[in-house]
Amino acid sequence: MLIVKKFGGSSVADKERILNVAERCVEEYKKGNDVVVVLSAMGKTTDHLIDMAHDINPNPSKREMDMLLATGEQTSVALMSMAMATLGVPSVSLNAFQVAMHTSSSYGNARFKRIDSDRIRHELDNKKIVIVTGFQGVNKYDDITTLGRGGSDTTAVALAAALHADACEIYTDVEGVYTADPRVVPNAKKMKEITYDEMLELATLGAKVLHNRSVEMAKKYGVQLVVRSSLNRAEGTVVKEDVDVESMLVSGVAVDKNAARVALIGLKDEPGIAFKVFDLLGKKNINVDVILQSIGRDGTKDISFTVARDDVAEVEKILEANRTRLTFEKLETDTTVAKVSVVGAGMQSNAGVAGMMFEALYNVGVNIRMIATSEIRITVLIDEADVDTATKAVHDKFIED
Amino acid sequence: MLIVKKFGGSSVADKERILNVAERCVEEYKKGNDVVVVLSAMGKTTDHLIDMAHDINPNPSKREMDMLLATGEQTSVALMSMAMATLGVPSVSLNAFQVAMHTSSSYGNARFKRIDSDRIRHELDNKKIVIVTGFQGVNKYDDITTLGRGGSDTTAVALAAALHADACEIYTDVEGVYTADPRVVPNAKKMKEITYDEMLELATLGAKVLHNRSVEMAKKYGVQLVVRSSLNRAEGTVVKEDVDVESMLVSGVAVDKNAARVALIGLKDEPGIAFKVFDLLGKKNINVDVILQSIGRDGTKDISFTVARDDVAEVEKILEANRTRLTFEKLETDTTVAKVSVVGAGMQSNAGVAGMMFEALYNVGVNIRMIATSEIRITVLIDEADVDTATKAVHDKFIED
Repeated sequence: MLIVKKFGGSSVADKERILNVAERCVEEYKKGNDVVVVLSAMGKTTDHLIDMAHDINPNPSKREMDMLLATGEQTSVALMSMAMATLGVPSVSLNAFQVAMHTSSSYGNARFKRIDSDRIRHELDNKKIVIVTGFQGVNKYDDITTLGRGGSDTTAVALAAALHADACEIYTDVEGVYTADPRVVPNAKKMKEITYDEMLELATLGAKVLHNRSVEMAKKYGVQLVVRSSLNRAEGTVVKEDVDVESMLVSGVAVDKNAARVALIGLKDEPGIAFKVFDLLGKKNINVDVILQSIGRDGTKDISFTVARDDVAEVEKILEANRTRLTFEKLETDTTVAKVSVVGAGMQSNAGVAGMMFEALYNVGVNIRMIATSEIRITVLIDEADVDTATKAVHDKFIED
Repeated sequence: MLIVKKFGGSSVADKERILNVAERCVEEYKKGNDVVVVLSAMGKTTDHLIDMAHDINPNPSKREMDMLLATGEQTSVALMSMAMATLGVPSVSLNAFQVAMHTSSSYGNARFKRIDSDRIRHELDNKKIVIVTGFQGVNKYDDITTLGRGGSDTTAVALAAALHADACEIYTDVEGVYTADPRVVPNAKKMKEITYDEMLELATLGAKVLHNRSVEMAKKYGVQLVVRSSLNRAEGTVVKEDVDVESMLVSGVAVDKNAARVALIGLKDEPGIAFKVFDLLGKKNINVDVILQSIGRDGTKDISFTVARDDVAEVEKILEANRTRLTFEKLETDTTVAKVSVVGAGMQSNAGVAGMMFEALYNVGVNIRMIATSEIRITVLIDEADVDTATKAVHDKFIED
């Protein structure tokens, strides 16, 4: 078997953790498997490098930032190889040039284009554990690129796809994907399996277990993922195309507190107004989520939608600058709201899930401000103060019952 | 003009110093020159990385050590490019892969084989300052190598040779090469010029201004070097093939306190004994310096020589293990000795320099234990306690007078 294992920054934060990871990889190797390990930078290294850069230049070139940040993973992989040597197992560390991991040229946010597997194959044939720098690549100019935060997950999936690996394991500091945040819902359960689509909905909604792009890539290339803990031997959660048909209606409850509601009141009721609003925001790269349009007084209409809280100030600026063109009378924003969602592939063939969710919220007195749905998700916008109550109630309804 | 400038670790140790170096390079660029900058790792970075490695593995593979250490220079060059951007000048950082700097495969102690100049030329043509990682290279396996301590000097010379640079400036924290250590001899003078050969003798003898290999390479390719301060605008010392014929008899006085004397007493007076001794030590990579052979009592002979103090324990072990074969009666070591040398190309055509040196030492009552000479150097071994007195006396004799 060829197994790709990815460990994040907290799993290699210090000497003890590096040795712990080395032991787990060596264990796998001693079973007779080929092992490829993908590592992030140690602990807070990346943040530290960013601080150093900003201290010198508040607005550094992205090309040089990637050159700088790439040193973090290179440090991790070299130290890991030294750690494995103390366990008597041969290994070799490889950076993005050495693999090579070819990406697009957009610094700070590059995408994989092609991965050469020759060097890795050669080292595996020589019975070495291969340790690869996550998060980074090389573009057509021979310059270093990075994939953006959390990119090491994507590196692991891309390598698993290129090498036709038998398994791709993403190690983290939680035991897997849970039905809700265990800090809010104490009886939240670890899921045994989950589909790519469910995982994507959960990741988007703030369950920060897997980098979204890695799940998209895993889906595209059919790479089965396992999310598990680097600290214990618990089984983890399998992410794959189809899960057991007997699986629950709802896989999990996700919360996103980084939400704000924007309302445009008293717009002229004429065609193209909504288009103008969202076209303006789209051009400025503002992600708009739940959208609601309703009839206002005196033949006008109202449009409300949610954005990330960080974007509120810019959204206000953009909209105010276009007040006349957009014909609105009043602009309201509210940053005390949050999104609670239920996600589940089972919903597609089961009507009534929305009704069950609304009932659960009604029973605990939580007021719903907005509603949005996709094929496998129902999201409600509620007051932030109600989030814990709402999450518990919805979790009890779908998962405990 | 194309100018290569090399700055060591202390010149880029923190934000202020990085900005200082950036300013000096930008100044050169604004004169209309092409500028290539070679940097070492910041301050104590390399030591810190070595400590991290040894904490995990006391005896790490050299291949992985080079992979680890190379991150130090990559950090420096990226930060330097960011600093230059704040001064409004375009620049680009390049690591050993990107240049590329091809070396032999011996990790930790690699030698340059070939340097591609295309990428650097291309960036210079685009009116960018090019900032290159010192100390590192890439071998035929596409693995990172390092050149050994002080290797950034060699990188600078190799680049100057490959690019046919008009000047190669080595910036350091002293103003140039001095006629003696200014801490010992307060009236020591900065030399205006010095030959490659004199510089080599001085470097070997502990004037830690230039890495020896860099001087050898500069001599081989005829690269004229300037050693100067990164902290002020003083003119520095030029290192070249021939200096002014009117130059002084002696260029400088060098001291090496890392010396120990080993004496083998009562060896059989038969052919090949000396060969056996030095062959044994050579095979263990022990560098032997000043050698003296004398007639002992009863038809025996004595051999004494100097080695670095760190090697004394191993030398004793090796010799004792071969006592019978080497036929010596007694082994003595003395670690309270030091070497004082006068170096000067002018000596070649002037007899009597040795006599002048011995006279100077006699006048201040310093006892000479051993003597060794080369074409441009006279070295005496004396008690360590006499070093400062001897250095001042010799300096006064040749340089002040």
